[in-house]
Amino acid sequence: MVIKSGTVDAKKLANFAARALQNAGIPEEDAKISADLLVRTDLRGIDSHGVANLDWYVDLIKTGDINVKPDIKVFSQAPATAVMDGDQGFGFIVGRLAMAEAMNRAEKTGAGFVAVRNSTHYGAGGVYSMMALPRDMIGISMTTGGLHMVVPGGNDIGCGNNVMSIAAPTKKGFPFVLDMASTVVAFGKVEIALRKGVAMPEGWGINREGNPMTDPAHFIQEHGLLLPLGGTTERGSYKGFGLAVAIDILTSILSGAAPTCMPLEEPNTERAENHFFGALRIDSFIPISQFKEAMDGMIKIFEGLSRSEGVDRITLAGQIEYEKEKERRASGIPLHPKVLASLQKVAKELDIEYEL
Amino acid sequence: MVIKSGTVDAKKLANFAARALQNAGIPEEDAKISADLLVRTDLRGIDSHGVANLDWYVDLIKTGDINVKPDIKVFSQAPATAVMDGDQGFGFIVGRLAMAEAMNRAEKTGAGFVAVRNSTHYGAGGVYSMMALPRDMIGISMTTGGLHMVVPGGNDIGCGNNVMSIAAPTKKGFPFVLDMASTVVAFGKVEIALRKGVAMPEGWGINREGNPMTDPAHFIQEHGLLLPLGGTTERGSYKGFGLAVAIDILTSILSGAAPTCMPLEEPNTERAENHFFGALRIDSFIPISQFKEAMDGMIKIFEGLSRSEGVDRITLAGQIEYEKEKERRASGIPLHPKVLASLQKVAKELDIEYEL
Repeated sequence: MVIKSGTVDAKKLANFAARALQNAGIPEEDAKISADLLVRTDLRGIDSHGVANLDWYVDLIKTGDINVKPDIKVFSQAPATAVMDGDQGFGFIVGRLAMAEAMNRAEKTGAGFVAVRNSTHYGAGGVYSMMALPRDMIGISMTTGGLHMVVPGGNDIGCGNNVMSIAAPTKKGFPFVLDMASTVVAFGKVEIALRKGVAMPEGWGINREGNPMTDPAHFIQEHGLLLPLGGTTERGSYKGFGLAVAIDILTSILSGAAPTCMPLEEPNTERAENHFFGALRIDSFIPISQFKEAMDGMIKIFEGLSRSEGVDRITLAGQIEYEKEKERRASGIPLHPKVLASLQKVAKELDIEYEL
Repeated sequence: MVIKSGTVDAKKLANFAARALQNAGIPEEDAKISADLLVRTDLRGIDSHGVANLDWYVDLIKTGDINVKPDIKVFSQAPATAVMDGDQGFGFIVGRLAMAEAMNRAEKTGAGFVAVRNSTHYGAGGVYSMMALPRDMIGISMTTGGLHMVVPGGNDIGCGNNVMSIAAPTKKGFPFVLDMASTVVAFGKVEIALRKGVAMPEGWGINREGNPMTDPAHFIQEHGLLLPLGGTTERGSYKGFGLAVAIDILTSILSGAAPTCMPLEEPNTERAENHFFGALRIDSFIPISQFKEAMDGMIKIFEGLSRSEGVDRITLAGQIEYEKEKERRASGIPLHPKVLASLQKVAKELDIEYEL
């Protein structure tokens, strides 16, 4: 393994993140688990949801917004379903437990679904849906997102850019992993544009007068409005909005929390994150080998589709991330200088060695 | 009740559709059930998926593409899940049976999921997810759609505009019913534009050179390409595409059929429709009254959001359809002259009275 200059070795990065989280107050085992999920996200190229958020998590732990020793409870009235109260625990720990709960139920009944209230930010949705893959299940993961969405017809924030992820295993190919916010782009994409110093394309967000915003710094300062997937009502933005509300129903209302879609002005300082996890045991439908072979066949069909001029290939959800993970595991994770600086700051604050 | 001139009474319309289906060969009880679901769709204002398709269904029955006396089979390996083989039965009958199967399983285990192969066109997805409402469940309904989607980077048809619907009950308010194709708009919207003689807005579809198409007649003749929700890759079209593939996995692969996303040239004359149904029993998560009150509270929040100039109100998925159903039940369903003409043609062909 040759770690390219300017990149960071995944194991070193995970060790660093685990030490940071542990020094901030998260118990050792939980810190390790969370750091692994965080670095997995960077490995898959989802730079908006990986260690770039570590300093923010450390801050939330310090302020007590993340409870480092939560009393997580599970309530269940039926074999296939449950509600979990995360007691403001770290989203990665709560999320992983809840997904395991859903899968254990699916093991017995074929399907398992767990709605989670009182959690905190759980990173990228895909790391939980993907937990279903080695168990030959289809995994589903949803979460409330930051308050950034303007609803169709509105002129201010009205809903979170709630996230949905679905993962399905294959035989030889990369696994299918859809992981999407219900806005045109996730807020993290705006932060990446800021970090890179590039403009946001038109069609991502608008200001309160309905005009396009393309300067990411300005967008973040002014709390600009992200458009629901579809963009305009004529082009189906009510679908992106509808998805966001459906996710809020499954995560927030079904878990016994309050809906999180609301105006920005509402007092929401104590607003928790809520999640929803699901698992479908494939062999309770059809034999696993049949399912996986059909998945491989589907990938072949898409690979063979005729393409527009200048397009090298057609990719499926999860394909680029799979390739990136292979590449980054072998040759290191490229971190933006600003992310490295934030990690250095974390190291200094928590008095741990910075050796990335 | 005063039926407005130019409109058709819902009961009369349902009787007519039932007689037509029965005369075409569907058994009496099945014909009645299907006609009710068809007219329910018109009542809700989804004019693209109601009786406007009756002549097409009658044709499919005549050609044997719809099996009027199917031997529908259910295979189950676990309490919460099942696979159904529809034996090319009428989609309305197969769909209704499968959704009932999912709900009966949810009654026992909290969650029920049924993947369906070898069905035919089942109309609007919302009529099945809504079956869960009176049983205090959250309903999910998905189906493969017509081959109309160009995938990001492609220059021809590559996927169906697969459909997903989610319904959740409320206490006093209209129920939440999301019912969406994974393209910017459903193909039926193009047919409505043709019927009305209006142009399609830019952003719905393109030709094989990648240029916008706005003439619906031309679009249908040339088998134009509908864009995935999002429109362009910069604006998230990979999300609409990802949704379409996720739906194909759940409907087609999980049911043991072949994936339906494929190039238009593939031999697909025998291509069946596949569905996926789900039900979550609300009181296996939290008390039903708590859930419904929170849903009403959420509706209030959206009603109170500040709006752009010229916008009367902000509406949620299912709201306009709910109001339309009330209005049309009271004063009749307005049918386009071309739809009335197609019904007249059906009456003549099947030798039944036309008294709409």
